Amino acid sequence: MTTLDPFALACPAPKADTERVLLGHGSGGLLMAELLRDVITPELGGTGPLEDAAVVRAGDTELVFSTDGFVVTPRFFPGGDIGSLAVHGTVNDIAMRGAMPVALAVAYVLEEGLPMADLRRITASVAAAARAAGVPVVTGDTKVVERGGADGIYLTTTGIGVRAPGVDPSAARCLPGDVVLVSGPIALHGTAILSARADLGFDSDVVSDSQSLHRLVRDMLAAGGAAVHSLRDPTRGGVASALNELAGASGVAVELDESLLPVPAQVAAACELFGLDPLHVANEGCLLAAVAPEVADRVLVAMRERAEGAAATVIGRVTDGRPGLVTVRTLVGATRILDMLVGEQLPRIC
Amino acid sequence: MTTLDPFALACPAPKADTERVLLGHGSGGLLMAELLRDVITPELGGTGPLEDAAVVRAGDTELVFSTDGFVVTPRFFPGGDIGSLAVHGTVNDIAMRGAMPVALAVAYVLEEGLPMADLRRITASVAAAARAAGVPVVTGDTKVVERGGADGIYLTTTGIGVRAPGVDPSAARCLPGDVVLVSGPIALHGTAILSARADLGFDSDVVSDSQSLHRLVRDMLAAGGAAVHSLRDPTRGGVASALNELAGASGVAVELDESLLPVPAQVAAACELFGLDPLHVANEGCLLAAVAPEVADRVLVAMRERAEGAAATVIGRVTDGRPGLVTVRTLVGATRILDMLVGEQLPRIC
Repeated sequence: MTTLDPFALACPAPKADTERVLLGHGSGGLLMAELLRDVITPELGGTGPLEDAAVVRAGDTELVFSTDGFVVTPRFFPGGDIGSLAVHGTVNDIAMRGAMPVALAVAYVLEEGLPMADLRRITASVAAAARAAGVPVVTGDTKVVERGGADGIYLTTTGIGVRAPGVDPSAARCLPGDVVLVSGPIALHGTAILSARADLGFDSDVVSDSQSLHRLVRDMLAAGGAAVHSLRDPTRGGVASALNELAGASGVAVELDESLLPVPAQVAAACELFGLDPLHVANEGCLLAAVAPEVADRVLVAMRERAEGAAATVIGRVTDGRPGLVTVRTLVGATRILDMLVGEQLPRIC
Repeated sequence: MTTLDPFALACPAPKADTERVLLGHGSGGLLMAELLRDVITPELGGTGPLEDAAVVRAGDTELVFSTDGFVVTPRFFPGGDIGSLAVHGTVNDIAMRGAMPVALAVAYVLEEGLPMADLRRITASVAAAARAAGVPVVTGDTKVVERGGADGIYLTTTGIGVRAPGVDPSAARCLPGDVVLVSGPIALHGTAILSARADLGFDSDVVSDSQSLHRLVRDMLAAGGAAVHSLRDPTRGGVASALNELAGASGVAVELDESLLPVPAQVAAACELFGLDPLHVANEGCLLAAVAPEVADRVLVAMRERAEGAAATVIGRVTDGRPGLVTVRTLVGATRILDMLVGEQLPRIC
């Protein structure tokens, strides 16, 4: 396992140094958004940084297509491992566009010397997560690099999904008046990874929320239909970055109510200890939704009927305030601006 | 760039050590086939090791789906770079199942400190190769690992293709009597990489054959239809490993004629110098085909009309000999058995 010092890394990366790739470019926050905007997207075009999955027409079918690399350290952590995480992450990216995944591909980059037992265990975990999600792994690839060329194992999972007709949840479809929902407690994944990094001298019982959310999305869409405007899984960069992206893409403001945020006590304690804002900590098994007010109750009821959404709750609303602005009404009644994550908070969180 | 000593690595890896991942497990040869058979496939099922792409039904459409990781070193080499190679490799895997690619996804794993100029150049190369192939990059992902966690940049490209109706080229469809074709000179890519590894003290004018072959395949299928039984791009493990896979999957034997093999003189010289068999050296821009004898001439003519297939030629035939056996009739009239690559010949060739 690589030694990572969160104190050294929590400082915002120097923005002036754009000549080399920085850890913060992988953060899911502002630096990554700039990298995509300035370097990647101008060349590749595509759907840009604001959607985690693309809609592709193939023959007569509208597909959703998404890819994600996984470099999480440690590779085994409370509540999962790099294998299950890789399946859940891609299933969820597809689900956030309102699609049900139908096939997965898994590409391995292995470091020479990786214990075969780890490879077996991770592969079994990929298989178990795929079976649980009802999505077959149909193809894959294996590359091996020499010792020191990687840190054990990296996975890239790619998925194909098929969208139900008549729904089109998108980062750009939030409307003023929409109710903002979260499907469960936040900041569990990041906190679990922190606790699993034994060298941090920190321990807790916090378990990652890593899980597949496509069935939850299916039930939400069944309840709310096209009035489910936006869906987003707040992974790297946390709830704050995800809501900033939605607000920016939709040209709306979002107001959260801090008293409504489901932050488990242990997570709050860990974040306080490390000076982290739970709203910036990664999640891998909850989602944010912006839904029209007239369907909010119905969607919440549908969410709570599933284990993944049992603790679903309202956390705020979309307004016609300054486009792109996300604010939080604090417990003492003040309002603070909630920015995207800047720099890198916890490298290799997923 | 990582220092690699081909003499140290050309020895077959010790087969008894199965407790750790070896460089040879990424070779495209026997060790990799064993890893897939013993570790990966039992868990993941799927299409197994013998096809580089899977056929997936999504809605009313039959899709071809393929993923490939790229870890080539050096990242820039004569005839291409990791970006163009990543596009060509995935386009070709899809083409080998008789499909035309419609969309690509690209996932980056970047090492902290990678020069931004390299990232820009590689991203531009991905974009140029995708444009040349007529396939858009529609989605992607970016992860950054700390210094020492990767060697600069790794890419995973995944593609979706749509198959023409009525064709089903597959590794398992070779029939005795089929003519074996190759679309162009062999062993160029591996030799170009070797020459680019400056620390090997070896230099040549050999340029990688890296290119997209989907239009060549389209024209071959137009000429030969369902009588184009099997297509294979002989990447890692070279022509020898690819033909062993076809022979094994189809339960047939393959006989090559050494005098017919298109090995450029410079490639032959380099291989002799390093003790490599050109039949085991990687290609990234040619394909092997097993076609029914009655269409062989027609398919050859169609191939030669395209730049990618201008040097297409017959190199052997499929027989009802011992299932899985590949032999070469040498220049002096003897017959030798052509095995899969064992161990690792040139790590990180793609």
